[in-house]
Amino acid sequence: MTSKTWAGNFFEDFTVGQVIEHATPRTVTEGDRALYGAIYPTRFAVPSSAAFAASVGLRQHPVEDLIAFHIAFGKTVPDISLNAVANLGYAECRFHQPVVPGDTLATRSEVIGLKQNSNGRSGVVYVRSTATNQRGEVALEWARWVMVHKRDADAPAPETVIPTLAPAVAAEDLVLPTGLDFSSYDFAAAGEPHRLGDYEVGEKIDHVDGVTLTDAEHMMATRLWQNTAKVHFNTEARPDGNRLVYGGHVISLARALSFNGLANAQIIGAINAGSHVAPAFGGDTVYAWSEVLDQAELTPSVGALRLRLVATKGRDESMTLRDEEDRYTAGVLLDLDYWAFIPR
Amino acid sequence: MTSKTWAGNFFEDFTVGQVIEHATPRTVTEGDRALYGAIYPTRFAVPSSAAFAASVGLRQHPVEDLIAFHIAFGKTVPDISLNAVANLGYAECRFHQPVVPGDTLATRSEVIGLKQNSNGRSGVVYVRSTATNQRGEVALEWARWVMVHKRDADAPAPETVIPTLAPAVAAEDLVLPTGLDFSSYDFAAAGEPHRLGDYEVGEKIDHVDGVTLTDAEHMMATRLWQNTAKVHFNTEARPDGNRLVYGGHVISLARALSFNGLANAQIIGAINAGSHVAPAFGGDTVYAWSEVLDQAELTPSVGALRLRLVATKGRDESMTLRDEEDRYTAGVLLDLDYWAFIPR
Amino acid sequence: MTSKTWAGNFFEDFTVGQVIEHATPRTVTEGDRALYGAIYPTRFAVPSSAAFAASVGLRQHPVEDLIAFHIAFGKTVPDISLNAVANLGYAECRFHQPVVPGDTLATRSEVIGLKQNSNGRSGVVYVRSTATNQRGEVALEWARWVMVHKRDADAPAPETVIPTLAPAVAAEDLVLPTGLDFSSYDFAAAGEPHRLGDYEVGEKIDHVDGVTLTDAEHMMATRLWQNTAKVHFNTEARPDGNRLVYGGHVISLARALSFNGLANAQIIGAINAGSHVAPAFGGDTVYAWSEVLDQAELTPSVGALRLRLVATKGRDESMTLRDEEDRYTAGVLLDLDYWAFIPR
Repeated sequence: MTSKTWAGNFFEDFTVGQVIEHATPRTVTEGDRALYGAIYPTRFAVPSSAAFAASVGLRQHPVEDLIAFHIAFGKTVPDISLNAVANLGYAECRFHQPVVPGDTLATRSEVIGLKQNSNGRSGVVYVRSTATNQRGEVALEWARWVMVHKRDADAPAPETVIPTLAPAVAAEDLVLPTGLDFSSYDFAAAGEPHRLGDYEVGEKIDHVDGVTLTDAEHMMATRLWQNTAKVHFNTEARPDGNRLVYGGHVISLARALSFNGLANAQIIGAINAGSHVAPAFGGDTVYAWSEVLDQAELTPSVGALRLRLVATKGRDESMTLRDEEDRYTAGVLLDLDYWAFIPR
Repeated sequence: MTSKTWAGNFFEDFTVGQVIEHATPRTVTEGDRALYGAIYPTRFAVPSSAAFAASVGLRQHPVEDLIAFHIAFGKTVPDISLNAVANLGYAECRFHQPVVPGDTLATRSEVIGLKQNSNGRSGVVYVRSTATNQRGEVALEWARWVMVHKRDADAPAPETVIPTLAPAVAAEDLVLPTGLDFSSYDFAAAGEPHRLGDYEVGEKIDHVDGVTLTDAEHMMATRLWQNTAKVHFNTEARPDGNRLVYGGHVISLARALSFNGLANAQIIGAINAGSHVAPAFGGDTVYAWSEVLDQAELTPSVGALRLRLVATKGRDESMTLRDEEDRYTAGVLLDLDYWAFIPR
Repeated sequence: MTSKTWAGNFFEDFTVGQVIEHATPRTVTEGDRALYGAIYPTRFAVPSSAAFAASVGLRQHPVEDLIAFHIAFGKTVPDISLNAVANLGYAECRFHQPVVPGDTLATRSEVIGLKQNSNGRSGVVYVRSTATNQRGEVALEWARWVMVHKRDADAPAPETVIPTLAPAVAAEDLVLPTGLDFSSYDFAAAGEPHRLGDYEVGEKIDHVDGVTLTDAEHMMATRLWQNTAKVHFNTEARPDGNRLVYGGHVISLARALSFNGLANAQIIGAINAGSHVAPAFGGDTVYAWSEVLDQAELTPSVGALRLRLVATKGRDESMTLRDEEDRYTAGVLLDLDYWAFIPR
């Protein structure tokens, strides 16, 4: 009679080239759309309105892109990061097609790199994960690296393999949703008049509004994605007795706050990089600002903005990301680099 | 490079006759029905049961009328009341047809009145708002007046225009949902035996039950309606550090509590008037009582009750609305006047 | 003019043989599935994935069995247990068919036993309740007994009738969902490799994870089931100012936690017995462990495990249910005995 419960993988359980099929497939529903809208102050017209989505050429009404990201990501947690010390970064995340209610997502990961830490007690695991729908089509893919505890500090170190990951997804590698056409885009309905050409590289936008976190809300969101990391739910799991807010909760909150100034950055095409700079807890008030990093023209009606999205604890009207020694300034929670589709 | 974010309209930005098309259209789903039922203790049989709705002649299964009201209302907040001092009143709110999952609601408003306050720092804006579905049909309409800050106290006062608004929607102006027929109404399934004729004008009903508010719940509700007023979400937005509960949250809570005694007042036909008498906060325990103000016979099977719905902080078994000097008694949060359809 | 509000039945209002048709019929939706997943950390593959459900022979995508149980149970509260002192037990609960979105559930109860307490101020009411769908088919049925206050201590005692209830549903009385076939079961997708034969009678499984309760979450769940017992919602309803957590909330939480070790115990076939041993409140951290009580082979691909599911406040790695004097050990919240279907 062996133990029936799963304690997660430790660093020495991973090998380069290993493929993991993650449990549990998950069907997306209109209930997910409603809950996302209850938990995050999102107002982007495409996921808000079936009529608006149809008016820009989409055959079905997609949910928020980050719903797909969180569900696909959540599946990897029991196998990849249950024993994680820290989630170190993301790269090369591309959304291949919008996810609609009725789609069932499953995720598989391949280990693409390993590096034991010099202290011998943990190591960095690099994985490339792919989420597919019930037709076997890729919905999204991403790379991620995470620091994981060793079960046994005496276990031998694996050969170090560090994968080459692009600093950003190239604009020409972005996948446009089938049918997407912004030529009849209704700017009044969408909420703002700004087109691709109205944004300048280097421009910063203070999104003004703040939201004070509650434990009930971040737990509900995190459970919805079937993310099982105990620190999010159990006050006995951390010495300070606080529930750590899932980093993806801050991503979704900041993205929703960015509507005010980026209302037309409707659909996320890629996540280039992301750092959870500091932990967030219930009671923190989260604000966001953005910086335009790049732009691209994709079709006659569709462009893309590459944006840095910064979440802060407390409002930082100065929008300072780093201090003179290149350290993140106090209060920065999240530094996310992504591409979004916007009308030209 | 101009500011991309939206700070809302100030009093001097409004002109009589001005028409505003509000962002963002919003599709109603079964997820909204479920969340409404999770946040409010509603048990009205029509929105609870598709089978019951069909049994009273409705072709599709409508959601709670107040879901439509809150969504339609929420759209007006960024343009009308982001800089509001106070939401002063409602009038002439008529529900033209039940909203069903799949309907996409959009709202437009016309400014119908303006009156600068004598202090010169704010003024009252009167708007008539209309929510339409994806077929362009009117779902509901209402008038509302709100006190709004001036951006610049030195801006000239507009000509005063005060619209004439009816003290109540006349019974003959109520719009019955297409097909509504209570002749085979199942009183046991609905939960109470009381028909139109069982209520007397002047009768008061203590709805007995109370609900203690939490911040997570009122924020989730308010976000669901895409209401962006920062005082509801951000503890740094008010000097007292409390999140102000959206007035509509108290309306929905009181309406749900009123099931106990008004279970057959199934469908709201109109809101005649409404005052948010005092603010509510997390931790407050809200109770409700009703007074029958009027009644009407509409078809051989359908009648209407005109009801005063009063929400109080703490239970008031005496059901006293006003003191000897005609001021609202302490504890009154909401004084709402509405029509509901009920079997004859 | 009589009172319009409903104060619930008292002990002397019940008679053996009495049949009560409970209000309000309730249609299950995809919104319920999403909310259940937001409130409980469930990952069972059948309710999580429409594709997985189809792969095991189910024509439609059922919701969690406990959604049906809570909705059906909630309907009985206003009539049976609004004036309850305590919910004493369950027996003979059988699930006749999975509930799918679109099903409308209604519940009727028959009083099958009465026993006044020796103190003359309360008594035990035994009911058998049956939930049917919109086609009149039985979805589930169960017996329950509850201690109810008398309105008038001087009311005469009824004849004592104590029904004979089976200590457990016999394996041959379990109703398999139509079409259920585990012969192509995907263990990797489901999350664990363990089959019926991998579990031994007497084996105990520590489910490891804990969840700290919040008031917002348990209230939202309890409202979703239209359960109206005021102690769950109103801090003024109990002398200690706490909201009592609905016992069913602990059942669902423990069942979801049991995924870790019982991931393939996909579908609940019956609840044999259940005791809410101690109250739970916001702030408590709930853990779960299970004991295998029995097993059965039902079809060539489907077996059943009879399981004791124990929820505790604080983790009890010793998995001790009772002390030397056969009393429940401190910390035990729930002792539930049920059958679940699992691949052979």
